[in-house]
Amino acid sequence: MPKQVDHQERREAIAHALWRVVDQHGWSRATLREVAREAGVSLGQLQHYFASRTAMLTFAMESAAERTADRVARGLAALDQPPHPRDVLRLVLVEMLPLHPDARASSRMSAAYVLEALHDPALRRQAGLGLRDGRAMVERLVRDAVAQGQIAPDRDPGIETDLVLALTGFSPLLELGVVEPPAALAAIDQHLDRLFAGA
Amino acid sequence: MPKQVDHQERREAIAHALWRVVDQHGWSRATLREVAREAGVSLGQLQHYFASRTAMLTFAMESAAERTADRVARGLAALDQPPHPRDVLRLVLVEMLPLHPDARASSRMSAAYVLEALHDPALRRQAGLGLRDGRAMVERLVRDAVAQGQIAPDRDPGIETDLVLALTGFSPLLELGVVEPPAALAAIDQHLDRLFAGA
Repeated sequence: MPKQVDHQERREAIAHALWRVVDQHGWSRATLREVAREAGVSLGQLQHYFASRTAMLTFAMESAAERTADRVARGLAALDQPPHPRDVLRLVLVEMLPLHPDARASSRMSAAYVLEALHDPALRRQAGLGLRDGRAMVERLVRDAVAQGQIAPDRDPGIETDLVLALTGFSPLLELGVVEPPAALAAIDQHLDRLFAGA
Repeated sequence: MPKQVDHQERREAIAHALWRVVDQHGWSRATLREVAREAGVSLGQLQHYFASRTAMLTFAMESAAERTADRVARGLAALDQPPHPRDVLRLVLVEMLPLHPDARASSRMSAAYVLEALHDPALRRQAGLGLRDGRAMVERLVRDAVAQGQIAPDRDPGIETDLVLALTGFSPLLELGVVEPPAALAAIDQHLDRLFAGA
């Protein structure tokens, strides 16, 4: 089905153009017109692929999430098998922080998307769903680690899950140079060492 | 000096208009024209108070930071004197999270400001300075608590400071309803209890 593949490829190319605009010039420049220019298509062609700005943002965000999942999957494959849950959590956190160019683009896209979602019910629903799925995945991992004695049984899996996810708060601190990458990684390692200690 | 007071009041009124625009309609609507309309002044009058969008954003962000500091100061005055450093850290964190309307407006303003700052060197310098001051204040508090035996001496004050600040990562989770306010507060309490335990 070459036609469908082309369609999907064109959508991906437009999503990448949107990321480049957001990454280089900021969210306020990410209009349909600017994204069409960056992608080298006409505004009419862009609207053929995305009926609305919301549709374009949602697609771009979903593809950023897929790229992050791919990076995590590649990272997992490189670990000892089966991977230790501590290493899995570290990998997930590190790939969500702006520590290298790919992750930085996803992280900025995601921060902009959250802000936009506050004023757009459709985006908000979509963003909430994606994040709740991610949270559920981390909580399953924490619960399994408690069940298998890798995390102490007196730890509350819900609270521990939220504390791990809240560490994505390093993103703005890293972006503005308030915390340097080695310090953020040391803090994450310290937090995870304590979570998996004393089991 | 009534004229200077008027000038300052007008600047504050414009900053409040900007917050309302950002809070209600999102960052993409926060143009000079829209802020002038919301503040009930002409575009020319607005430009008399703020020579550039950067100047307006910086002033609005500084006044949001002052309002947050005022809320923290009022909260501190309501605590037992002298306040325990655990309660101080909790208060600072809680006032930085979108848990009530005032804090939510500051939190959204700050998230939008960070994104804007990534593409504007002057804003970036300004935002970095403010955040580094805040970080230094928290680190002094942590170091004093270690010196006074309220935090165990084997804790690294730099790492503990970064972990506390990273918990502002609850902001997007709260905004999108992925974590509910009582769960975020329980997680923060758990983190602080452990920080001050075993000293």
